[in-house]
Amino acid sequence: MYIKELGEFGLIERIQEGCLVDPKRVVKGIGDDAAVLPYHPGYFLLVSTDMLIEGVHFTCDTATPWEIGYKAAAVNVSDIAAMGGVPEEIVVSIGLPAQLEVKFVDELYRGIKECCRTFGINIVGGDTVASPRAIVINITILGKVETEKILYRCTARPGDLILVTGDLGGSAAGLDLLLNPRPLDAGLTTELKKRHLRPQPRVREVRVALQDPGLTAADDISDGLATEIREVAKASNVGAVIYAEKIPLSPGLEEAAKVYGKSPLEYALFGGEDFELLWTCRPEAAERISREVEKICNTPVTIIGEILPREEGLNLVYEGRKIPLPEGGYNHFKL
Amino acid sequence: MYIKELGEFGLIERIQEGCLVDPKRVVKGIGDDAAVLPYHPGYFLLVSTDMLIEGVHFTCDTATPWEIGYKAAAVNVSDIAAMGGVPEEIVVSIGLPAQLEVKFVDELYRGIKECCRTFGINIVGGDTVASPRAIVINITILGKVETEKILYRCTARPGDLILVTGDLGGSAAGLDLLLNPRPLDAGLTTELKKRHLRPQPRVREVRVALQDPGLTAADDISDGLATEIREVAKASNVGAVIYAEKIPLSPGLEEAAKVYGKSPLEYALFGGEDFELLWTCRPEAAERISREVEKICNTPVTIIGEILPREEGLNLVYEGRKIPLPEGGYNHFKL
Repeated sequence: MYIKELGEFGLIERIQEGCLVDPKRVVKGIGDDAAVLPYHPGYFLLVSTDMLIEGVHFTCDTATPWEIGYKAAAVNVSDIAAMGGVPEEIVVSIGLPAQLEVKFVDELYRGIKECCRTFGINIVGGDTVASPRAIVINITILGKVETEKILYRCTARPGDLILVTGDLGGSAAGLDLLLNPRPLDAGLTTELKKRHLRPQPRVREVRVALQDPGLTAADDISDGLATEIREVAKASNVGAVIYAEKIPLSPGLEEAAKVYGKSPLEYALFGGEDFELLWTCRPEAAERISREVEKICNTPVTIIGEILPREEGLNLVYEGRKIPLPEGGYNHFKL
Repeated sequence: MYIKELGEFGLIERIQEGCLVDPKRVVKGIGDDAAVLPYHPGYFLLVSTDMLIEGVHFTCDTATPWEIGYKAAAVNVSDIAAMGGVPEEIVVSIGLPAQLEVKFVDELYRGIKECCRTFGINIVGGDTVASPRAIVINITILGKVETEKILYRCTARPGDLILVTGDLGGSAAGLDLLLNPRPLDAGLTTELKKRHLRPQPRVREVRVALQDPGLTAADDISDGLATEIREVAKASNVGAVIYAEKIPLSPGLEEAAKVYGKSPLEYALFGGEDFELLWTCRPEAAERISREVEKICNTPVTIIGEILPREEGLNLVYEGRKIPLPEGGYNHFKL
């Protein structure tokens, strides 16, 4: 059997067995956005890692080295935000072709450091190796979160409402504009490309939201809303319904969708790389959380659905009809 | 300017600037085998990361997937041992071609897990991505060490003696035998290849040695003895002398050197990837440390030289003559 037949998620399941030699040292291992370990009294240590490979996650034709570096750091920050944490330190491994210009690396690191400055992160180590063909970047991030505030994927409960920060679909539309440019309003084009190249991890937003005791679960939207809902539902052993018309679409998404012959909803549900946060909360907390985050962070928070008992399955209410939530989203090896 | 002109170490120096946004949170950042951070009371958290790329660090022609996995974990464990620490957790990122067989990944992880079981390490997370060409493995390791026991590179003092664990050169000779097989005694061939493919990180050894208050500094020998001595001397602002005849050579090294037209010393000084430990200690402690480690771990520890004041430079006593320690050792991008 080949990896492409198994797919990314099948592979991860296969790998998981026998990973814990001393489980009592681990609060949470594989299966959420970050591993959770004991840390200073009152805190958990969060650990997450992301590998980006040229030609798969980025190309030098469509992103500057600064943007590649910035995003490599930002996707890791988003994993910490997904757990409710504060990012602290990163280590950066890079694999580089020997014939690459030093200026490229300078710019790559300028991007990484810009993201680190924004979120108060120290770069404390790394590895620098030759890579004959593709540029490879691996960042591992450490963060911390109060033990009583941590947010998991597996704690959503029937009756909870589903919230998302910001807006969705813009990153995927931006990627279309980068890979296959078509005429669109210059302002919208710039904005959508920026969604793809400069994601804004929602650390401040989650730190505000988790002050509310009604927040129950969280995930970051890296592989598309549909995939992330599925992950939360699977981990929490629940069902869910999403109202398509409630999903906040990125500005310019409708115009871009028209140009590429897609629907805005397709971008929002399956596009991925928005790096917004998906939250669930007790119904009475939803308006309160939304209001607080908007007030303090100036980031909209939208109620898009509800957690249901498992038997109800995963549903999308679309043009008045309830349909099963379509499969889709990014899956490495299955393209 | 191109990266190959700058070399690995020039690149690292260039990257270092502006890495620390909040330095008071960091005990030691870039510049040793692992970053050092505050942790549970009485302990430091150690963090290190290593990237291995197919065709640079390993080939599937000369190593089984099990061996590739085992070694990817072991090189990280060695970084923790170099600081005097105990390895605790790893996260594993892998980039894999979609047409790779699942069996390969199973075996790769079996190797990683074997190393983890040996050293009591939990695999707590990772990332699994498509890599169109080369297999890429990045492991980040976390470890801990008592705050009063930690070993740095930068703390060697003139008058200290220089010790190494085990024997040197075997890994490089094993690599020659793997890449360019020539007739040699089968037992020796197997043994030397094993040195290359199954390094034994010296965790137990350092944990015994650091019970002795006379131990002053440490480094692991990943890029060849000459390079590591240079690193310790530079970091500690000292000079050193190494006695060539005292360097413990791996069994079979002389025979292999003859077959490949090299000198055993060349392998031992510049070969790299032995993953033994280099220690410095107060002169009165050397015999004591050596005896204890041999007794408890059955690993020889050999005195090979002495730390000198900086003005003395770096020297090698070879066939009765004192010569400057030759440059050499592995340097990415400068091949």
